[in-house]
Amino acid sequence: MSDLTDRLAQGLPHGGLVVDPDVMAAYSHDMAGFCTAGTPAVVAFPETVEQVQHILRTATDLRVPVVPQGARTGLSGAANAVDGCIVLSMVKMNRILELDPVNRIAVVEPGVVNAELSRAAAGLGLSYPPDPSSWESCTIGGNIGTGAGGLCCVKYGVTSEYVLGLDVVLADGRLLSTGRRTAKGVAGYDLTRLLVGSEGTLGVVVRAVVALRPAPAPQLALAAEFPSADAAGAAVCEVMARGLTPSLMELMDAVTVRAVNELGQMGLPESTQALLLVAFDGPDPAGELAAVGEICRAAGATEVVPAEDQAESELLLEARRLALPALDRLGTTMIDDVAVPRSRLAEMLAGVAEIAERHALTIGVVSHAGDGNTHPIVIFDADDPEESARAQRSFDEIMALGLELGGTITGEHGVGLLKREWLARELGPVALELQRQLKAVFDPLGILNPGKAV
Amino acid sequence: MSDLTDRLAQGLPHGGLVVDPDVMAAYSHDMAGFCTAGTPAVVAFPETVEQVQHILRTATDLRVPVVPQGARTGLSGAANAVDGCIVLSMVKMNRILELDPVNRIAVVEPGVVNAELSRAAAGLGLSYPPDPSSWESCTIGGNIGTGAGGLCCVKYGVTSEYVLGLDVVLADGRLLSTGRRTAKGVAGYDLTRLLVGSEGTLGVVVRAVVALRPAPAPQLALAAEFPSADAAGAAVCEVMARGLTPSLMELMDAVTVRAVNELGQMGLPESTQALLLVAFDGPDPAGELAAVGEICRAAGATEVVPAEDQAESELLLEARRLALPALDRLGTTMIDDVAVPRSRLAEMLAGVAEIAERHALTIGVVSHAGDGNTHPIVIFDADDPEESARAQRSFDEIMALGLELGGTITGEHGVGLLKREWLARELGPVALELQRQLKAVFDPLGILNPGKAV
Repeated sequence: MSDLTDRLAQGLPHGGLVVDPDVMAAYSHDMAGFCTAGTPAVVAFPETVEQVQHILRTATDLRVPVVPQGARTGLSGAANAVDGCIVLSMVKMNRILELDPVNRIAVVEPGVVNAELSRAAAGLGLSYPPDPSSWESCTIGGNIGTGAGGLCCVKYGVTSEYVLGLDVVLADGRLLSTGRRTAKGVAGYDLTRLLVGSEGTLGVVVRAVVALRPAPAPQLALAAEFPSADAAGAAVCEVMARGLTPSLMELMDAVTVRAVNELGQMGLPESTQALLLVAFDGPDPAGELAAVGEICRAAGATEVVPAEDQAESELLLEARRLALPALDRLGTTMIDDVAVPRSRLAEMLAGVAEIAERHALTIGVVSHAGDGNTHPIVIFDADDPEESARAQRSFDEIMALGLELGGTITGEHGVGLLKREWLARELGPVALELQRQLKAVFDPLGILNPGKAV
Repeated sequence: MSDLTDRLAQGLPHGGLVVDPDVMAAYSHDMAGFCTAGTPAVVAFPETVEQVQHILRTATDLRVPVVPQGARTGLSGAANAVDGCIVLSMVKMNRILELDPVNRIAVVEPGVVNAELSRAAAGLGLSYPPDPSSWESCTIGGNIGTGAGGLCCVKYGVTSEYVLGLDVVLADGRLLSTGRRTAKGVAGYDLTRLLVGSEGTLGVVVRAVVALRPAPAPQLALAAEFPSADAAGAAVCEVMARGLTPSLMELMDAVTVRAVNELGQMGLPESTQALLLVAFDGPDPAGELAAVGEICRAAGATEVVPAEDQAESELLLEARRLALPALDRLGTTMIDDVAVPRSRLAEMLAGVAEIAERHALTIGVVSHAGDGNTHPIVIFDADDPEESARAQRSFDEIMALGLELGGTITGEHGVGLLKREWLARELGPVALELQRQLKAVFDPLGILNPGKAV
């Protein structure tokens, strides 16, 4: 055993360290494309706060980088190993410590899977809204690291809105407690929100107090077929301008619609250039859907199909669930994550179509339209270096377009390795310098997830 | 003119500087009690971002402290002058730059009064929810500095939830842009939220992008009289545990009820030891009020009065509006701001009553009960040094009690001067050290609002 693993083993239970190369290879990366991953020295699986502190103290003593990980479902390479690092997998710290319906909070360890928290909350008539697509496998710790979003965000907001307090092990092993268990609190700077979305570069979350909401009613959905992305974008704007707040508003572009149509045998006509799905979970979803139906028709929808009941809703939403699998069948995929003001959504879609055409690539766009958060999915042949290079270029041009439209390079997936160079472009020099100085306050030796985000 | 005013005058319009001692005295403090205020060297009223930059550059060059101010309605002394400082009043930067119903945002200068933004938003069917009691005079910049809350927070959250992006002039005069105009975004550390609630110690907000919501329906209220604070606290817990989300849930204790009864000639019986006001603004407020009424009766309410219409609602809510004026008539008041988990609300009220009795003082408690946010109001004779000392001690003991119950020393008023010594007790040494290091990153010379908060 090396000095590192020897030192680590002194404070970890049997089975808490893995150095098997095959296992380490599996833990060396998340689900992002186009990102390099190094070879870890060891993968550690702590089970207690003290063990995490021991690992960080050891890392500081030996100046070894530490890469914190949840379920590795991330899409930006933020959890990718660097050479010689300790991969710090938090998956064994997976207990729900408290569920409190009066204070509407849960206290959880970081390895709790999103869906497990959601189901436990549902058992008490509560919900934990943030619902990234990977919710059946991703962890709350990973969600906090990324600042994860999901389909529900148009109505219920993102992870940041639901994190009230954190226990965090700092780079030198000290334990930091931030935030509160109360509904409100303004004592001192908001370190909790600074840590949400910091991608494991400032500290390792070992416990979180998250807010819960009363469980919403089951949602009722509507599908509307549009002859153009412009028309669908106009409908999205009108829905929001009228003061309606859907629980879900997803838009699929022509590429995605064709792929889904093929995979799911949906029988959508060729004329459908955009498919909008809208749902409500309020007390009168049928009434709200009727209003949305009218808005869609006025915007030029060729077909509007409101569900009559929950089963029909599920059928309509199936189209959205099939989107990624349907596009995956067409080649290697790389998923982008550009959010623009929702008034610019149609321009964003038109711009992406132009980029796809210019690079002779297929790019399907799935959008959380209510948030203006688009996921352009670039499809390419990974065995063709020239096509891969075009894919990479188009991926970058999509980010440039997003910034041009007043948007951000990442709505909910994070910066990680994938968008590191682009972060400087979005933030500008003053913000970037401050961010690096903040990083240095938390992690003066630079051992926490080096090379990621800022 | 001194060197300082001379230098400042070079970059400010006529009338942009005031050195008249009487005017300066008025601008030397906010509305907090028990807080010292120094004598400013000058009060500056910039009208543009460039002028703010000029002021900060001058202050950095000459090492002069700067105290940013909104409408000075704060209750923690955060806006109090220090000797020889530049008081930086943002009240002349008071334009609403954009109101955008599609993206549901407003772009405002910091001196915009909360009520003006609210009314402008209402004109487009939108609302800006944070509603501190001072909303008719306080500014959005001040709200951001404090992290202000209000009555609506039980349903709609606090200022922090509504600030999407900021333009901030740093201590050295550089302009920092944080955040975004989009609904979502996770590019880099969340500097926006770090700045919200930072009480002018990290930078001077010169522009803010804030989120708006569709205007809610008018709320319908209910008043319930309880024979004890315990019973009222139990009702509050049960309302939340049942998954109801009122738009307002305010609780007044026996002292406040008596004072309001006297001032407003409400005719409440002597047996009323606590008065709970609950309102809903959803599609079926009457149904929700009926459910709350049953909960209150089951918890022991002696009387439950649901409003039949909005006019009746306003009459019921009048009791809450009279609370502060009614207590003010009894002597000098000092308002505390302790938030506890709402499940501990009854214990908090019992503890405050015990403190009042032990110190032979009158303390009335008005609570945003749905948030667990209590405002114990200590009443004393400011001309009696011994009684003033007891008032100060009881004020401190109330904070100690809040911490003991798992709460925070400040739910929405901030730390300022008033609670500075208490902040260390809440945060603990690790968080406090980090906060001070963050402060040093933004303001290495320590010229921004020195001696406040951290």
